[in-house]
Amino acid sequence: MTSFTPAETAAMHRAVVIAASPDAPAGPNPRVGCVILSPDGHVLAEGYHRGAGTAHAEVDALANLAAAGISAYGTTAVVTLEPCNHQGRTGPCAQALLDAGVADVVYAQDDPTAQARGGAAALAAAGVRVRRGLCAEQAARLNRPWLLAVTTGRPMVTWKLAATLDGRVAAADTTSRWITPPAARHDAHRLRRDCDAIMVGTGTVLADDPALTIRDEAGRSAPARLQPLRVVVGSRPIPPTAQVLADANHLLLPDHDPHAVLAALASREIRHVLLEGGPTLAAAFLRAGVVDEVVAYVAPALLGAGPAAVADFGVSTIADALRLHHPHVVVLGEGDNLAIRLTGDPDPGGTNRTTASITPIHHHAEENH
Amino acid sequence: MTSFTPAETAAMHRAVVIAASPDAPAGPNPRVGCVILSPDGHVLAEGYHRGAGTAHAEVDALANLAAAGISAYGTTAVVTLEPCNHQGRTGPCAQALLDAGVADVVYAQDDPTAQARGGAAALAAAGVRVRRGLCAEQAARLNRPWLLAVTTGRPMVTWKLAATLDGRVAAADTTSRWITPPAARHDAHRLRRDCDAIMVGTGTVLADDPALTIRDEAGRSAPARLQPLRVVVGSRPIPPTAQVLADANHLLLPDHDPHAVLAALASREIRHVLLEGGPTLAAAFLRAGVVDEVVAYVAPALLGAGPAAVADFGVSTIADALRLHHPHVVVLGEGDNLAIRLTGDPDPGGTNRTTASITPIHHHAEENH
Ligand SMILES: NC(=O)c1ccc[n+]([C@@H]2O[C@H](COP(=O)([O-])OP(=O)(O)OC[C@H]3O[C@@H](n4cnc5c(N)ncnc54)[C@H](OP(=O)(O)O)[C@@H]3O)[C@@H](O)[C@H]2O)c1
Ligand SMILES: NC(=O)c1ccc[n+]([C@@H]2O[C@H](COP(=O)([O-])OP(=O)(O)OC[C@H]3O[C@@H](n4cnc5c(N)ncnc54)[C@H](OP(=O)(O)O)[C@@H]3O)[C@@H](O)[C@H]2O)c1
Repeated sequence: MTSFTPAETAAMHRAVVIAASPDAPAGPNPRVGCVILSPDGHVLAEGYHRGAGTAHAEVDALANLAAAGISAYGTTAVVTLEPCNHQGRTGPCAQALLDAGVADVVYAQDDPTAQARGGAAALAAAGVRVRRGLCAEQAARLNRPWLLAVTTGRPMVTWKLAATLDGRVAAADTTSRWITPPAARHDAHRLRRDCDAIMVGTGTVLADDPALTIRDEAGRSAPARLQPLRVVVGSRPIPPTAQVLADANHLLLPDHDPHAVLAALASREIRHVLLEGGPTLAAAFLRAGVVDEVVAYVAPALLGAGPAAVADFGVSTIADALRLHHPHVVVLGEGDNLAIRLTGDPDPGGTNRTTASITPIHHHAEENH
Repeated sequence: MTSFTPAETAAMHRAVVIAASPDAPAGPNPRVGCVILSPDGHVLAEGYHRGAGTAHAEVDALANLAAAGISAYGTTAVVTLEPCNHQGRTGPCAQALLDAGVADVVYAQDDPTAQARGGAAALAAAGVRVRRGLCAEQAARLNRPWLLAVTTGRPMVTWKLAATLDGRVAAADTTSRWITPPAARHDAHRLRRDCDAIMVGTGTVLADDPALTIRDEAGRSAPARLQPLRVVVGSRPIPPTAQVLADANHLLLPDHDPHAVLAALASREIRHVLLEGGPTLAAAFLRAGVVDEVVAYVAPALLGAGPAAVADFGVSTIADALRLHHPHVVVLGEGDNLAIRLTGDPDPGGTNRTTASITPIHHHAEENH
C-alpha cells in the first residue's frame, strides 16, 4: 500500500476543489489542480488549469511559488492528474517539476492519453519520489466527461428530460412549457454550463424553437466564449428564424446515426454533450448504447396524453428494462412547486467503468521511488 | 382564542397516537382516542376505539379509569373527535361523560355526521366546560378517509401506481413484474392495510391475476377479518381460477361509471378504496374527478414502450395538466434498488378541503363554557 501523510491528503482535497474553480471551464482539457507543500507539510503555493492554451496546474503553481519568492527545491507537488510528458500548447509539466527541483510528486490518477502519459515514469527515472492513487475517485469524478472522451474517443452524453409522473414530455397539442416548476428549470439550465455542446433533434426545434443558450435567472446571456455549441440533428429543414441559428456557434447534422453524430462532435474536441432532444432522438441514442448519464426532472403532475419521455428503443419485456445505476434523488423547490431530480447511469459502470479502464494503463509508475 | 394547558396539549398528542393503534383497524368508524386528566393535569386513564361494535374511545377510557378504582368526578376528558350524541351500536358518549361526572371536555374536531353530532352542545347545555380545536389538523389527518366519506357520501379513493421514469406501468408484452424494487413493493403493500377495499379493472385481472390480499413479507396472508374487499370493475368475464375469486370477500361490478362504482362501495360502508387498476380504470376515475390521493412509485428505469401510467383523461394542453397538491417525496431502498414514492392530491385542497368543509357545521360548540 502506498501511504500518504495527512498533509498530502489535505492538499489533494484542496487541489480537487481548486481544479473545479468557476473559471476552469468545460472544454477539451481535463480539470487539474496542484498544491505545493514544504518538506514539513506546509502549503507553499497552489495553482490550477484554466482551459486550453493556459498554463497547466503544476506550472501555474510553480509560477505562484516563484512569485512569492520561494524556491521549489525539495518540495512536494500534490496534483490531481499525472503530470504530463508532452510538448502540447505549453511545455511538459514533468520537465517543469524536475527543473524546479521538486523532490516528491503525489498524484490522484494516471493520464490515460497516448500523447501525455509517461510523466510519472519520467519523473521517477530522474530520481523523484512518485506516488499515485490519493483521492483517485474524487479526481475521476472531476473529469468524468474528459476521461470518458479520451478513453472511448467520443463525447460523454448526458440526456436531460423533464417529464410528468406519467412520463409525458409534452401535452397532446405538443405544448411543453412548462412541465416542471422554476426550481427544476433553473437546475436544468445549470447543466448547460458543464457541457461543450447542447443537442436536440429537428422535432424539438420545430415544436419549441429553443434558444439552447446559457442565460442567468434574469434571462441575460452568458458571454459568447462560455456558450456551448448548439447542435441540431435531423434532415428536415429548420426555419431561418429559428433561435438555434442566432449566431455561428451552431452545427446542423443531417444524420440519423448517433455514432456518426458523436464522431462529428469529437472531431471538434467536444468532450461532453447535453442531449436535450425529444423522445425520438433520446431513443436513438439509448438504442445505440451511447447515453452515459440520465438527468430526469419529474413533476408531480399528470397529463394522460402526449409524447412519452422516450420512444421505443428496443425493450419488449420487463426483464430487459434499462435500469439506471448509481441512482441519486434530489427534491427541488417546495410545496406545490416541488419537483424531483433523478440522476443515474444507464450503462453498468458509468463512473466506475471509466475509472477502471484507465487504472491499468501504466502501473509502472506505482510506488516508484 | 380558546386556550389549552400544556397538559391538555400533551394529552391530545397522546390521544392521536393511541387512536391510530394497530388494532384500530380501517373500517366504517372514525379512529378516536381519549385521555382522562385529573384537575391538576395528571394522566389518569386512556382509551381508544377498536372498530365497529366495540366501545367508543371515551367509554373505553372511563372503563379503564373505573377499573383502576378512580372516580371520574371533576376530571377533564381530552378526545380527538367530538363526543357522539347518538345511540349507535353503543350508547352516546356525551351522556356517558356526563353520567361519570366529567367537568371539562377538550376535543380536536367536530363530528360532521348528522346522526352523531351535537354532543358538544349537549355537554355544554348540561354545564360541562367544552373547548374544541386542539390539534385539529392532526386529528383530521388521522381520519381523512372517514371524514371525506361522511362529508361526500362516497369512499376516499387512493390511486397507487408503479411506473418507470418514462411513465410505463408495464412492458410492451404486458409484463410488469417487477417494475419497482422490493422496498417499494413492500411499502405499496402496506397501503392495503389502510383500506377497506382494493379495486382493479378486468384488464389488470386478465393481465396479472393479482391476489389483492394483505400478506406479510414471507407471503403469509393476514387473517380474513383484516382482508379488504376485492373489487373488479368491468364487463369482461374473468376466469373462475382468478385469484381475486379465491373466497367470498370480493365484488364484481360490471359497470363503467366511477360514481356508480363508488356508490356501490359506499352502500357497503367502504370508506377508503385503493385503486390498483391499470391506465384505463385510473383514467376513468381521474376524468370523473374522484381520485383524492395519488401514491406513485417511480423506478429509475426506462422501458421506451408499453402502456403509460394513465390513459387519456381529457387533458390536451400543458396549462391543464393535473398538478398534485401537497406533494411529498420519499426515497425507498438504496443503491441500485432505490425507488421514489411521490404522494399528492389531484384535487386542490385534499386534506385541507376536508377539514374546511367540516369546520362550519356547528360553531355553536365553540368556546362554550
Ligand atoms: N420535456 C422535455 O424534456 C422535452 C425535451 C425536448 C423535446 N420535448 C418535446 O418533444 C417533442 C418533440 O419530439 P421529437 O421526438 O420529434 O423531437 P426530437 O427527438 O428532438 O427530434 C426528432 C428528430 O430527430 C431526428 N433524428 C435524428 N436521429 C434520428 C434517429 N436515429 N431516428 C429518428 N430520428 C432521428 C429526426 O429528424 P428528421 O426527421 O428531420 O430527419 C427526427 O424527426 C416536442 O413536443 C417537444 O416539446 C420535450
Ligand atoms: N404498474 C402498475 O401500477 C400497474 C397496476 C395495474 C395494472 N398494470 C398493468 O396495466 C395493464 C392493464 O391495463 P388496463 O388499462 O387494461 O387495466 P384496468 O384499467 O385495470 O382494466 C381496464 C378495464 O376496466 C374496465 N373499466 C371500468 N370502468 C371503465 C371505464 N370507465 N372506461 C373503460 N373501461 C373501464 C374495462 O373492463 P371491460 O372491458 O371488461 O368492461 C376495461 O377494459 C397490465 O399490463 C397491467 O400489468 C400496472
